[in-house]
Formats: sequence, structure tokens, C-alpha cells
Amino acid sequence: MLLQVTAQNYKKSGYYLKGHTVIVVDVLRATSSIIWACRNGATKVIPAADPGEGASMAARMGGCLLAGERDGLKLPGFDLGNSPSEFTRDTVQGKTIVISTTNGTGAIRNMESAGNLLIGGMLNRTAVAKRAVELGNDIIIACAGTEGEFSADDILAAGCIASAIVSLTELDEQCDLTIVSRLVYESWKKGSMDIAATHHYRHLVEMGFIEDARFCLQEDVTDVVPVYNNGMIQPMA
Amino acid sequence: MLLQVTAQNYKKSGYYLKGHTVIVVDVLRATSSIIWACRNGATKVIPAADPGEGASMAARMGGCLLAGERDGLKLPGFDLGNSPSEFTRDTVQGKTIVISTTNGTGAIRNMESAGNLLIGGMLNRTAVAKRAVELGNDIIIACAGTEGEFSADDILAAGCIASAIVSLTELDEQCDLTIVSRLVYESWKKGSMDIAATHHYRHLVEMGFIEDARFCLQEDVTDVVPVYNNGMIQPMA
Repeated sequence: MLLQVTAQNYKKSGYYLKGHTVIVVDVLRATSSIIWACRNGATKVIPAADPGEGASMAARMGGCLLAGERDGLKLPGFDLGNSPSEFTRDTVQGKTIVISTTNGTGAIRNMESAGNLLIGGMLNRTAVAKRAVELGNDIIIACAGTEGEFSADDILAAGCIASAIVSLTELDEQCDLTIVSRLVYESWKKGSMDIAATHHYRHLVEMGFIEDARFCLQEDVTDVVPVYNNGMIQPMA
Repeated sequence: MLLQVTAQNYKKSGYYLKGHTVIVVDVLRATSSIIWACRNGATKVIPAADPGEGASMAARMGGCLLAGERDGLKLPGFDLGNSPSEFTRDTVQGKTIVISTTNGTGAIRNMESAGNLLIGGMLNRTAVAKRAVELGNDIIIACAGTEGEFSADDILAAGCIASAIVSLTELDEQCDLTIVSRLVYESWKKGSMDIAATHHYRHLVEMGFIEDARFCLQEDVTDVVPVYNNGMIQPMA
């Protein structure tokens, strides 16, 4: 089994992705919010390419919640932003959510040709790692990055999931970014990597979302693994 | 002063680069070989976009050495490959060298709009850091990467140079990849990052170039800082 981690703006042919299990990670905050929505009983989550597509999808379907942000802030007229704390059981149980975020939902859509597409974060690290290993294909952990840039928070989360994968199976090969992301994770665990100094984390703190940031960096809070299929994300049956 | 590290395939507008000092790094082996050639008395080194351009430049100019590799191997009919050990004083003193390599020379050409373009490696880490800081602009350490992929050897070297910069000046800001590359370098120094497990290093070992790889990862062997200007690289006056 080959394990790759990719950073921002990763593009590969649909043919290549077809043979892979892809775990998309946008730990601050889109994939963490989607995991939390599924954990709290959302029936499905539909990632929209942009806010316009999201709004028109939600209008056509009716009865769903419209969520999303740009530059961290809830979009005007939307029901929810992109904070996991908004996706409570009271709010989302039994609901369909349409969501568009700056980086995460686009990253999911970029990867839709994958043989299997899982939604990963630190919140479900062991569960998503286990599921990916069970599927038996080579694995790509695809980091959403931040506005096309390398984002250390996603690399930390990728390393967190990669380390769980390594503890579950023998790898034939790991790429350089897998090695580096595992180093980032191990350093963070030991306290020698200060995630609070990194760009996107600082931005969230400045916007008043420090509780979100702390929440999203918790490990193994749930066993729920959201799976993308045919345009929608649902918790694994 | 802002310090950025960029990985593979970095592209920015000429206007943006104009205000920056760029240090191009392809530690295994192109920028290390260029540093070594300059240290050993080469008059100038001309980075060619591809082997064809290199061969025709060399033919037009006459009297120069033609160097280059593809997939690590010296190109047929070329005088030299891309091994620092070939660029001895006996071979290169007083000579012009035209060189084309798989990743490094293209990365230099990509950055030619930079206000100042320096050639960096671990061999000249302190000298190149000092020169970049003296120039007073924001700094980009541009890693060549390996065939468009993130390459941990270049990230190690970028971290090595970034750490030297940090010891010389107060930074206003460092990007996430700067933080991660410094972590890679510090981990390597402490023996907790095994560079021999990474992709390009292993490839060089398989090709029989382990001595080159070891040579290029030595720190502060020379004070020579090659500078690119108007299509050619010369040791700083």
C-alpha cells in the first residue's frame, strides 16, 4: 500500500484517482464541521462549488439548511456558517445541509473521481484511517490548504491520520510529504511544534474562532466516517 | 521582513518577484553543483531551460563546458553531468559552464524576475542567508522540488537556510512552510528525521550517487554566493 499526502491545489486525472481511496482534510474547519454534522444526525451534506451554486441548490431542494463562509464569516442570508459548534443535534438531526466553504468544499469536489472519497479530520482520525485501510487501495490524504497555499494545520491533521494508518498496516511506500506530515504531528504531540503560530490558526483566532480551532484539533472524538458519493456526503452505513 | 518558503512549481508574477530576494534551492544536486563550480573558479554558469537550448548555446559561444542530466544521468555528448565532484578546480577554473538539469535550472529560470536571485544550498547556508538579509527585501526560499513534487531534501535545505536567516534578523512574519521547513531541519540535526528515507535521496543512492548526496548535505563549506543576473550566474563580487 502506498500512502501519499498532498498539499494545496492537488490535481490528478480522474483515471488516476479512480484506483485510490482519497481522504480529504480541511481540519480548520470544513471537514471537521462536516464530520460533526454527520455525527449529530444530518442525513446528508452536499458540498457546493461556490455560494451561488449552494444557494440555488438549496432553493431547488427546499427544506434544507444552507451553510457556508467566505474569509471565515458566515455568508449573508445563509442559515449556518462553518463552525462545528453550529452543527448541533438540535439543529441538524434529520436534515440535509448544503455547504460552501473557501477551501474545503472545493477540495472535496476536486477529488470526486476518487474510487472512494472519505471526509477526514482529527476528530475521526482512527475511524477514517481504519476505513481507508479496509478498502485496500492506495491512499491519498488530500489537504485542502488555505487559498491555494500550503497550510500547516492541514499537514498536522494529515500526519495525525497518516500515523493512524501506519499503526494499522504495513506501507510499501510513503511520499516525502507523508514523512514530513508525520514529523509535524509527532512534534506537535511532543509540544515542539506550535500550531498557534501558523497562518490559518492565527487567522481564526483573530476572527474570534479560537474555540473552533481547539475543538477541531481534538483526536478521536467520534467514529463517524462521512463518505462522498454522487454529489453528496453521508455517514458510512 | 517576511520570509517565505515555497515548494514545487511555485509561480508568481514578475511584478511580485521584483520586490523580493529569491534564494533558489535544489540541494540534490543542481544548486550545490553550481555553488561548487563557482567556488572552484568557474567564471560564469548559464542555466539552460532544457538540454537542447543548452547544447545550442554552448555551440554558439564555443569554448565552454556543457553540463547536465536527466533522471540523474549525464546527457550523451555533454562534458559533465550534475555531480559536484565533477566541478573541480582543474576542470572549471576560468571556464563558462552551460548547464541544464531536471529541476534546478528550470526553477532558476522561473524566478528570473526576482529583484535579486541567489543560488543557495547547505554548502553556503550562512553566506547566502547573510547576503539575503543584507539586501533588505522580503525573502523567498524557492525549492525546486522533484519533477513537480514536494521534495523533503529541498525542504531540509530551505529550513537550514531559514534558520540561518532567523539567527541574523528579526522576522515580521514567516509562512507555514517556513515553520515546517525549520522543524524538518531541526529534527534532522537532532537525528529524528531520516533524510535517507526520502524519495530523491533514495533515488540518488540507487543511481550510485550516495557520495554526492552526503557532500551536498554538508553545512557552511564555502562563503561563495552565486548570483543570477541577465541570464547568467556569477560568484558575488
